Amino acid sequence: MPSYTAPTKDLHFVLHDVLNVSESDVPGYSDLDADFTSAILEEAGKVASEVLAPLNVVGDTEGCVLENGVVRTPTGFKDAFEKVKEGGWTGIDLPEEYGGQNMPYIMYTAVGETSSAANQAFTMYQGLTHGAASAILVHGTEDQKNTYLPKMTSCEWTGTMNLTEPHCGTDLGLMRTKAEPQGDGSFLVTGQKIFISSGEHDMADNIIHLVLAKIPGGPDGIKGVSLFIVPKFLVNEDGSLGERNGASCGKIEEKMGIHGNSTCVMNYDGARGWLLGEEHKGMRAMFTMMNEARIGVGMQGLAQAEVAYQNAVEYAKDRLQGRAVTGDENPEGPADPLIVHPDIRRSLMDQKSFVEGGRAFLLWASKMIDQSHRGGDEAAEGMVSLLTPVVKGFLTDQGYDMTVQAQQIYGGHGYIEEWGMSQFTRDARIAMIYEGANGVQALDLVGRKLAQDGGKHVMAFFDMVKTFIKNNGDNAALKDDFLEPLKAASKDLQAAGMYFMQNGMKNPNAALAGSTDFLHMFGHVCLGLMWADMARAAQAALDAGTSDPKFYETKLATGRYYMARRLHATGLHLARIQSGADTVMSLEADQF
Amino acid sequence: MPSYTAPTKDLHFVLHDVLNVSESDVPGYSDLDADFTSAILEEAGKVASEVLAPLNVVGDTEGCVLENGVVRTPTGFKDAFEKVKEGGWTGIDLPEEYGGQNMPYIMYTAVGETSSAANQAFTMYQGLTHGAASAILVHGTEDQKNTYLPKMTSCEWTGTMNLTEPHCGTDLGLMRTKAEPQGDGSFLVTGQKIFISSGEHDMADNIIHLVLAKIPGGPDGIKGVSLFIVPKFLVNEDGSLGERNGASCGKIEEKMGIHGNSTCVMNYDGARGWLLGEEHKGMRAMFTMMNEARIGVGMQGLAQAEVAYQNAVEYAKDRLQGRAVTGDENPEGPADPLIVHPDIRRSLMDQKSFVEGGRAFLLWASKMIDQSHRGGDEAAEGMVSLLTPVVKGFLTDQGYDMTVQAQQIYGGHGYIEEWGMSQFTRDARIAMIYEGANGVQALDLVGRKLAQDGGKHVMAFFDMVKTFIKNNGDNAALKDDFLEPLKAASKDLQAAGMYFMQNGMKNPNAALAGSTDFLHMFGHVCLGLMWADMARAAQAALDAGTSDPKFYETKLATGRYYMARRLHATGLHLARIQSGADTVMSLEADQF
Repeated sequence: MPSYTAPTKDLHFVLHDVLNVSESDVPGYSDLDADFTSAILEEAGKVASEVLAPLNVVGDTEGCVLENGVVRTPTGFKDAFEKVKEGGWTGIDLPEEYGGQNMPYIMYTAVGETSSAANQAFTMYQGLTHGAASAILVHGTEDQKNTYLPKMTSCEWTGTMNLTEPHCGTDLGLMRTKAEPQGDGSFLVTGQKIFISSGEHDMADNIIHLVLAKIPGGPDGIKGVSLFIVPKFLVNEDGSLGERNGASCGKIEEKMGIHGNSTCVMNYDGARGWLLGEEHKGMRAMFTMMNEARIGVGMQGLAQAEVAYQNAVEYAKDRLQGRAVTGDENPEGPADPLIVHPDIRRSLMDQKSFVEGGRAFLLWASKMIDQSHRGGDEAAEGMVSLLTPVVKGFLTDQGYDMTVQAQQIYGGHGYIEEWGMSQFTRDARIAMIYEGANGVQALDLVGRKLAQDGGKHVMAFFDMVKTFIKNNGDNAALKDDFLEPLKAASKDLQAAGMYFMQNGMKNPNAALAGSTDFLHMFGHVCLGLMWADMARAAQAALDAGTSDPKFYETKLATGRYYMARRLHATGLHLARIQSGADTVMSLEADQF
Repeated sequence: MPSYTAPTKDLHFVLHDVLNVSESDVPGYSDLDADFTSAILEEAGKVASEVLAPLNVVGDTEGCVLENGVVRTPTGFKDAFEKVKEGGWTGIDLPEEYGGQNMPYIMYTAVGETSSAANQAFTMYQGLTHGAASAILVHGTEDQKNTYLPKMTSCEWTGTMNLTEPHCGTDLGLMRTKAEPQGDGSFLVTGQKIFISSGEHDMADNIIHLVLAKIPGGPDGIKGVSLFIVPKFLVNEDGSLGERNGASCGKIEEKMGIHGNSTCVMNYDGARGWLLGEEHKGMRAMFTMMNEARIGVGMQGLAQAEVAYQNAVEYAKDRLQGRAVTGDENPEGPADPLIVHPDIRRSLMDQKSFVEGGRAFLLWASKMIDQSHRGGDEAAEGMVSLLTPVVKGFLTDQGYDMTVQAQQIYGGHGYIEEWGMSQFTRDARIAMIYEGANGVQALDLVGRKLAQDGGKHVMAFFDMVKTFIKNNGDNAALKDDFLEPLKAASKDLQAAGMYFMQNGMKNPNAALAGSTDFLHMFGHVCLGLMWADMARAAQAALDAGTSDPKFYETKLATGRYYMARRLHATGLHLARIQSGADTVMSLEADQF
């Protein structure tokens, strides 16, 4: 049975040593002193390891069952959900007026990492609710907010997002679901939606579906899509539940992982719905949520890598197999532990340097969301908009690879379900796909974000890297091991951007053929920057005579590994990009 | 429902255009004219696509069930196995005197690719039998050969390989299973073996277990391990089946994939067994099979990548989503097919260039096995021994990545089980683990094979690359697109080898920390060499006025992609290797 311990010390390090949250002028951050965040993260960590983690395998094994239109969640999920609700964990960053705690988004991310790592499928019930509540918060009328938000903040009612249909996912302009106006402000929604996470279940009194649909007579394609609130049970004027709406689960999908979450085919048969936001502006309403949702998915990639890594370390220390090539390290025992072997360490260091770097990246992006939403900081908004596809695509692609590496350390025991390592891999796989498949993230990055606002944000990114390098130029601890590799990687990234500029206008394929490579090299440069900044913070703590030198020395050593062994990847990606589109596009479809 | 079509044309191309098998002087190769191999591969392809492929999802969904000691295989497996036996497919490369067809191993590989691609879990029943039969063929007494081989060649009896125990997999010296001599030439074998593929099932009259065990009083560790034949039913003098032996299946493992194969915990409770080969030389007997078995596993990695690729291509041509950035390509339709998008092509080209290059690599290695076994060619034996860990590790690591890429093209439909793409990924995952986890392959390559026979084989490899480049130096079609990249990649590989030589003696960790990188760069150079050779063959066919120019032009274009976009990886691997072991080994175990 795998275990999970929340990385509270590492979270603390990023929040306080690296991002200095409590000294930041972002509104609400002054409350985030070390005592406060530690108390929150300690408690969240307990819920994660004691309540959620023990149900992870259960959820995977039992899955969700649909019987007579009712979905039964796995044993223990309902009780655990009650505990999470009682603890007030469901609305920590939602407004106090609706029962939330109004903490910054960065705390939602930090807490979210721990619950996602402990049980991704379970955490999605709450995560989808959070997404739907955020949409109502931004686009809802006062009446809608008062009706839905208090119950959704507490997760007495949960929420869903309904975009995909059988024939369209990425290209939602092809959507067929219809919403016919009834003249009383309501609409009748008819159509089928698929892949609806948490679409139907037995853990909440009501489910508030947000459904994209077309109002007949509206514009063609994506411009004619509107967003509707379609509750499972209609809500009476007094807030009590009324009749059952025409929204039902037709099927639960069998899938590779996240079995504990009910992924539903949802049938809307003249279900009553109400417009959320403006007519035909449904995609805009959805996009408001997109940055947060995508960063949330990036977090899932990281979280699965973290929990898989923790269990890989345990096994590598525990399992005796072979002898160290440099001499026995466990001479009394029948063999040495796996962790003595260089290739096992190489794998563990890949994982460790990724999760710690990725965590800093994620929390930095979350801070920028707070700067943007709470502080109205447009530069931060632009930067996080640029980096969102990188957070999503890079952390989930790499996060998945890391779960595969962690699983590999178990050998055959990683392939059987008994040890739980297979589940981490299978669960992590979805994060590369949903909220926009990673190829779509790469397209968004190269096709839209790079040139957004005249390329201002990407230039700001390069300036930031340059400034960091300049400001730390006389820091001997950073110079060779961190600043030089960061400079080289950043130069590669700039060269790739330059290649796109010079060739993409003539031939857009020249840019798009390199989009996934660009996303990955961008991710590496971000993690390189994070590691350089973490090294700065670690060295500062050591220079200041910290009482815990080993912790900070470990940070420096892990960072050096990333810079020496991982960051080089930018060169490979650049070479691929600069090879152009010709070899990529040369075949006719029938030559495949 | 996924489909599979055997790539007979591509197999033909490698066998005849590239390897010129029928003109080769390897004993038995003169029979391999184009008519003969085409007839075999056409028929094998039919069995694969019509008999085995339709059962792939069935096997995954139903799995194997243990009830009262009896294992029930999935619906249809038994009938399909009968068809395979009737067609004579089970012993195509085994000796005629035992009922086989005595074809070269290269034909076993070519046919094996098609059945593994169609249904890996099913094909393993036969594959394990082949491995066990080969061991008996090489190490058995005349009596043992006459008793077991005719029935195993026909798969009336199947075979298993029993190495792993709960506490030891890679480090078999820790083994606890005992074999007590009974004074009559037999032994009583007692112990537990795990992860025994095809360990118990309902498709054969008898199961011949080959079991590694220790004879009490023998040398400690790996040097005291012997190999035993332990039949499920004892075999009477007249060849009829006698009493049930004390070998039983205690449990079927729940695993990530290959559900159609019964992966058993096998309990040996004083089961009667007979020594195969010499006392205490069990590992040597096993190692005889190792090259073939590992190449067979490399084939599985390739095969899953091939079938996943085929289905990804189908979906990419079929699924309408979005519009080509360079203008609508399906203006009459609601959207363009996925295949117009550059990042989709990038992914398909990654897959296509891998499977075709990998196939050539695999068949080349198989040819060297024939040169060695049939022709006594020691140089070929040395070369294939060097390359075996590369075939196994590279083709399975990369093959898995390609199944993940193929799955990704399906978006959400790749994550649900309905389309079968998840199964390819889950099935492919095991090949990175069994027959020696890929980290162990890398250790074998760098720690043993590089220096074997004074480094003679790796030098021969570099000479071969050099000679190829020299011999084709005036071929304008090859020069810039193939020879230059191959030369650069080969130089990277040599530099890595040089680094190991200069640093590995002082500090073995300096070599082993780079072992996985070295394995991968070696794999890339091999595929680069294969592509250069395939380009040579394709150009020759075009120059000779082939009637099918499109086929050969596609080969050239696919090869150019590999050389331009994949082969560069050697530079990244070299940089990692040259960064040394310090960052890899710097942490104490408690710092993880």
